[in-house]
Amino acid sequence: MTDKTPKPKQADDDFAVTRRGMLGGTATTVLAAGTGAIGGAATMIGAGAVQPAKAQGRGQKYALDPGELDEYYGFWSSGQSGELRIMGMPSMRELMRVPVFNRCSATGWGQTNESLKVMTDGLLPETKAYLAAHGMQTYENGDLHHPHMSFTDGTYDGRYLYMNDKANTRVARVRCDVMKCDKIIEIPNASDIHGLRPQKFPRTGYVFANGEHRIPLPNDGMVLDKPDQYVAIFTAIDGDTMEVAWQVIVDGNLDNCDADYQGKYAVSTCYNSEEGINLAEMTSSETDWAVIFNIKRIEDGVAKGDFTRHNGVPVLDGRKGSPYTAYVPVPNSPHGCNTAPDGKHIVINGKLSPTVTVLDVTKIDALFESGADPRSCVVAEPELGLGPLHTAFDGKGNCYTTLFLDSQMAKWNMEKAIRRYNGEDVDPIIAKTDVHYQPGHNHSSMGETKDADGKWLVSLNKFSKDRYLNVGPLKPENEQLIDISLDPPKVVHDGPTFAEPHDCIIVHRSKVSPASIWQRDDPMWEEARRQAAADGVELEDGADEPIRDGNKVRVYMYSVAPNFSMEKFTVKQGDEVTIYVTNIDDVDDLTHGFTLGNHGIAFEVGPQATASVTFTADRPGVHWFYCQWFCHALHMEMRGRMIVEPRSS
Amino acid sequence: MTDKTPKPKQADDDFAVTRRGMLGGTATTVLAAGTGAIGGAATMIGAGAVQPAKAQGRGQKYALDPGELDEYYGFWSSGQSGELRIMGMPSMRELMRVPVFNRCSATGWGQTNESLKVMTDGLLPETKAYLAAHGMQTYENGDLHHPHMSFTDGTYDGRYLYMNDKANTRVARVRCDVMKCDKIIEIPNASDIHGLRPQKFPRTGYVFANGEHRIPLPNDGMVLDKPDQYVAIFTAIDGDTMEVAWQVIVDGNLDNCDADYQGKYAVSTCYNSEEGINLAEMTSSETDWAVIFNIKRIEDGVAKGDFTRHNGVPVLDGRKGSPYTAYVPVPNSPHGCNTAPDGKHIVINGKLSPTVTVLDVTKIDALFESGADPRSCVVAEPELGLGPLHTAFDGKGNCYTTLFLDSQMAKWNMEKAIRRYNGEDVDPIIAKTDVHYQPGHNHSSMGETKDADGKWLVSLNKFSKDRYLNVGPLKPENEQLIDISLDPPKVVHDGPTFAEPHDCIIVHRSKVSPASIWQRDDPMWEEARRQAAADGVELEDGADEPIRDGNKVRVYMYSVAPNFSMEKFTVKQGDEVTIYVTNIDDVDDLTHGFTLGNHGIAFEVGPQATASVTFTADRPGVHWFYCQWFCHALHMEMRGRMIVEPRSS
Repeated sequence: MTDKTPKPKQADDDFAVTRRGMLGGTATTVLAAGTGAIGGAATMIGAGAVQPAKAQGRGQKYALDPGELDEYYGFWSSGQSGELRIMGMPSMRELMRVPVFNRCSATGWGQTNESLKVMTDGLLPETKAYLAAHGMQTYENGDLHHPHMSFTDGTYDGRYLYMNDKANTRVARVRCDVMKCDKIIEIPNASDIHGLRPQKFPRTGYVFANGEHRIPLPNDGMVLDKPDQYVAIFTAIDGDTMEVAWQVIVDGNLDNCDADYQGKYAVSTCYNSEEGINLAEMTSSETDWAVIFNIKRIEDGVAKGDFTRHNGVPVLDGRKGSPYTAYVPVPNSPHGCNTAPDGKHIVINGKLSPTVTVLDVTKIDALFESGADPRSCVVAEPELGLGPLHTAFDGKGNCYTTLFLDSQMAKWNMEKAIRRYNGEDVDPIIAKTDVHYQPGHNHSSMGETKDADGKWLVSLNKFSKDRYLNVGPLKPENEQLIDISLDPPKVVHDGPTFAEPHDCIIVHRSKVSPASIWQRDDPMWEEARRQAAADGVELEDGADEPIRDGNKVRVYMYSVAPNFSMEKFTVKQGDEVTIYVTNIDDVDDLTHGFTLGNHGIAFEVGPQATASVTFTADRPGVHWFYCQWFCHALHMEMRGRMIVEPRSS
Repeated sequence: MTDKTPKPKQADDDFAVTRRGMLGGTATTVLAAGTGAIGGAATMIGAGAVQPAKAQGRGQKYALDPGELDEYYGFWSSGQSGELRIMGMPSMRELMRVPVFNRCSATGWGQTNESLKVMTDGLLPETKAYLAAHGMQTYENGDLHHPHMSFTDGTYDGRYLYMNDKANTRVARVRCDVMKCDKIIEIPNASDIHGLRPQKFPRTGYVFANGEHRIPLPNDGMVLDKPDQYVAIFTAIDGDTMEVAWQVIVDGNLDNCDADYQGKYAVSTCYNSEEGINLAEMTSSETDWAVIFNIKRIEDGVAKGDFTRHNGVPVLDGRKGSPYTAYVPVPNSPHGCNTAPDGKHIVINGKLSPTVTVLDVTKIDALFESGADPRSCVVAEPELGLGPLHTAFDGKGNCYTTLFLDSQMAKWNMEKAIRRYNGEDVDPIIAKTDVHYQPGHNHSSMGETKDADGKWLVSLNKFSKDRYLNVGPLKPENEQLIDISLDPPKVVHDGPTFAEPHDCIIVHRSKVSPASIWQRDDPMWEEARRQAAADGVELEDGADEPIRDGNKVRVYMYSVAPNFSMEKFTVKQGDEVTIYVTNIDDVDDLTHGFTLGNHGIAFEVGPQATASVTFTADRPGVHWFYCQWFCHALHMEMRGRMIVEPRSS
């Protein structure tokens, strides 16, 4: 393999420079080079906005007229913001924030009993104990990197979105019918979930999740500063039940992953085959690998009991030499892992090598069945530029790879890359487009499905240096919209992002159809329903008076614009009060809110939904509650009083 | 006055309809009417994007080319989201979120010791006691309605932004040099701060804040369900020290407010002169009022001790008949209060009346000095349409009033309205522009200053019904950009918003110049500096080992891409650990982050900044910390281990 593995020396030298040099240098050259492109983009935007772009063949229209709908949903990671974002594409407008791992002031996510149940039910017992012992109801932060939709037969099916939390080792699911998170589970045994991808075929099925960091197993303090005893763990979650199906111990570590279109294999990159615990150690070897997981063999292994159970989960040993995995050597520190819509190729992105390595899934069987050389499934390894991180596809045989160091998007042709690898004198690179600056992930419209349509590409850039008005020491990052219907592709729009875009998917609107009104029997407030029944109350009818149960008081009210069903209610200082609000309005967009003044309480109640919060009424006096979600011309008058009688009285 | 006060009957009838009818009806008519306008807008966008708009005189360009900078900063409320947003205008791109009253997963606002100090120092003792008693470090929600910049001589001076929290009765300040919140104070005696405006002249000076809801004074449980003993309170805060200067008890309640250009008066609207505690009572009277505060007289009253002290604040009695206030009757339930850039007129918006009432500040002296009829300062009262809420200005004598029920923006001329009021047969209304749908606040570029430039107007609409792809039961709201350099004005862009825009200001970029790098001696981490000095450590040098102080352990590390100064540190289970991170990188945009895995800890550290967090290390084992703010090509390798020795060992 060595003859075909480029020496990563050149790359290493560049990486020796810190970002100071990188950014500075890149900025200058890119800005100079950028001028022409910008002019071109401007012309195209103008044309696009005035008449149908296709007519002129001068690019697609991205700046929509007022009231015009987007063609695609963008489902966006928010990185360390911990939320999921729904964007309109190609307009790049943020349509909604969906709180997932974060505490949300507006919706009460992280405060309502309903959201706390979602956020805590799936935590490990020791985590619940730790949080409780230190006065925390749940984690209030997350690091959400990779949102992906459930698949059926190789394309999006609009059921669920799955996403990772690197910060607190969790995986969450969002229901696409109401666009709310309904499950969050903590992954046992692993540490810091990074790469996440759903099974593409026959359906999801499994959600694969990479434990990036190596830790002791179990991590209970018996093993401490002995890195040689740490392990990294690959996890398969059942996407329907959101329970961990099985886990596999691997050599090295796990970065990004993807699944094939056959339902046979999942693949993860490893940038730390050295199993080092600091920068020098982790980058010392010129070769790392991609590890391939044989799903059928693993399921058989589980069936025949070839595992150890940790935290109730069957954990198989997939280290080198096991029947469950194959390790394919690739140049230094691969990062992104992307399956092409041709259903045949998987691109491993080099990061510290200027190359990407292309695997052919039809050649992987031989690795497991006839002990073929692991590199025998490599069919191309084009040199693209400095810092290849992720690759997107247009469904027409072309690939788009982000070059972090060069701040460029390299467009290259898969078939030419394979011919080049086979010795033909052909250049697979079609074009390079400057982006601003330092791109991480990128994504094309429907690009991770068999329906990739080659219309739009988004480059998620880690720095926005000089692209926007200065907003202080903390800058936005920069998402750039690229029209790949044009050759060469052109950047048509800059979009600032807080805190980082990290990753996204672009889903045709035909794949998603959310409801506008909640179903009254939604499982989200099942416990509220149960408690109401026990109290002989119908949630939608409310109760005229608080229901007292010792020092526990339950207040059932409904809202109908512009009124709450209770003008006031009275409790005693020290009571533990639970307030249930049911929104009986059944009109699109008619969300109500409930804010209790000077108690730090506020939450959202969608049309036909119920939400509740529990707190201790310990401030004697008169406190107003009001609707904070604009609902009616007399919205400001939609309020009432909580009267708290002093303990003395 | 009655002859000049329109009967609000027509309005009332309409308001009897709930939003069901309103929205449905409005949507249909508006969509029909809108078609033409949209076509027009489209043409203009095209033209705007291709060449300088003025050249064609066909409107201004709003869709910026990639890399092109905005002309204005937009400082946006986020309503119940609790944060401040910085927008680029006219592109309507969100450039930054500034956490203020909310818990922020990305920056660690609400978790770092530095942010917790800002969020708790200004709380009242009883609030601190309540929060502490119930395991809360601070409030984690806010309802941020009105962001306004500090003024000098009638225009923005770029020093500070001030904003209210209706949910928990607070006022906050954001430093414009670093765009971070540095002060949050709880307002005593009042309840639920709504309207907020800074003094315009000679400078800010005072920040005026309206306590919207009537409560007992003191609200300690001695007075409960006796609404006749409740009061509403107006507050003047010293914008430099962020201490309450004085308060005034008023009749009725307080909604929105504004200040004059002379430094003599502040004015607030009252929609509840009935002093009712439910919808029927609050809307029963056909007349409410605007209350005018005489600043000089109030300062004299404070000087000569004509006040009662509550919670350490001098509280004057400004109820009817007092020398401190004048009550000007206006039609039913006025809402917005807007001082015109002509420096002379103040517009009171009718809400339940189809009119706005114009006060002439030069006629206000007589109300206080010669007992003139309060209505004698009214110089116009044009009927504009249904549900006038707020008025913006173009600096050319024209006013733009949002009509909530009609879902329109009414453009009218001040001078013509005055002539009409004086009996001339002239129509003050110049144009009505459809917006989508139900506009609340609006704002024009530099419109609340003497530098109003008449270029752009934003309409902040409460509903987005059918304007965007469906994202589930919770919909975005809709901000529309209107080009008011055109006659009639035209809507050129729809911008979705979470959770509500509520209010905003549009500030020319020449007025603001933030820093890109923090000053090492910034007061934000003064306590960290003090503790480091006591420990004999320089924050920027860090310490090689944790410093133990009983079971308290302090870890000092610095960050320089792509490394933390500590590869690992060891503590004992049960230790109270404080981690200080100082970012010694001094490059634009080179923010680092610190995330401690599986502990719910993550925060931002800007270039040259220090941030810290305190927690109990109670999970024996190996836990990785990593940089979550992308900083370098080897960002993923920027990590280390916290080793927690079990209690037993």
